Amino acid sequence: MKFDHVLKQMKDRMPEKRYIHTRGVALTAIHLAEKYGEDTAKAEIAGILHDSVKYADKEWLRAKILSEKMDPNLLNFHHELWHAPVGSYVAKNEFNIDDEDVLQAIKYHTTGRANMSPLEKIIYISDMIEPSRNFPGVDLLREKAEKDLEDAMISCIHHSITFLIGKKQPVFPDSFHCYNDLIQKRGKVKE
Amino acid sequence: MKFDHVLKQMKDRMPEKRYIHTRGVALTAIHLAEKYGEDTAKAEIAGILHDSVKYADKEWLRAKILSEKMDPNLLNFHHELWHAPVGSYVAKNEFNIDDEDVLQAIKYHTTGRANMSPLEKIIYISDMIEPSRNFPGVDLLREKAEKDLEDAMISCIHHSITFLIGKKQPVFPDSFHCYNDLIQKRGKVKE
Repeated sequence: MKFDHVLKQMKDRMPEKRYIHTRGVALTAIHLAEKYGEDTAKAEIAGILHDSVKYADKEWLRAKILSEKMDPNLLNFHHELWHAPVGSYVAKNEFNIDDEDVLQAIKYHTTGRANMSPLEKIIYISDMIEPSRNFPGVDLLREKAEKDLEDAMISCIHHSITFLIGKKQPVFPDSFHCYNDLIQKRGKVKE
Repeated sequence: MKFDHVLKQMKDRMPEKRYIHTRGVALTAIHLAEKYGEDTAKAEIAGILHDSVKYADKEWLRAKILSEKMDPNLLNFHHELWHAPVGSYVAKNEFNIDDEDVLQAIKYHTTGRANMSPLEKIIYISDMIEPSRNFPGVDLLREKAEKDLEDAMISCIHHSITFLIGKKQPVFPDSFHCYNDLIQKRGKVKE
């Protein structure tokens, strides 16, 4: 891969299992970028960097959200969400990524949002379906990703929201806006 | 009932089945208001008037939303939602209701919202569980309404959102905010 030297740097930042996941996201993102005519280099670097601060200290993440004036509503939700916007900040300031689409793809890889770019969708989907993921329904998501990026994105955000609501967990507003946006643009899709 | 003369006026505005529903909502709302220490007269009149424009012309509803500067985002969603805010306007301007809590209970009876008052919850719940309602799970909602208003409201909004998402339908943002607000205040509840 083009950015193997960056991928290697992720080894010190996360457990082995997460590193395997990271590589899987990058490879899946390259594959989907090729399939849907997007920039494979952007897909690769976004995939490599998407979880760079997944294991950062919670209080450090909270401080970054405040000092960098990110959406303060994030702090009302589970800290699991915080690594995505802070990861985007780190991609820019530590790894010198200046491509806005790559930065946004990292920023929204956990929640999604309304009006996602194709690259944002590719990273969101790749994060859910990369080869080491194993949950009921993942193969159907993989099949959809091979056929239609929009349908796959609808099914992925639908899966995420259904999972959270099924557990009576809060859902970050960006995810709802993502869901409504896709559903309203596409209408009901085939199962 | 105290407002039988207003209830009778609903007969000309809706089919027999909806009139039976309206009476059922008013009676259920009175019962829940008594149980939870809320004003039974407010509960009754809100129940009676909640669907007053359910069968109004769609274009008239649209025009009212625009002319009265109601949330324009309503127009991006199914017209089924429009009768609630317009019903609140009609309650105020045609039926001379000036109690803000009653008007808000009518306005949000279809979507819910964050920070609902007890009366708003009573009307939302009554609309779902009144005696003529018959859908899978309604008896469990009825049981919850007898025990705890908060739990019942969480279960009702959860049921609504799950139903819509299950059909891959859009969900009006107020409903998501209602769900998150209740879940975040209460945390996970027992099934």
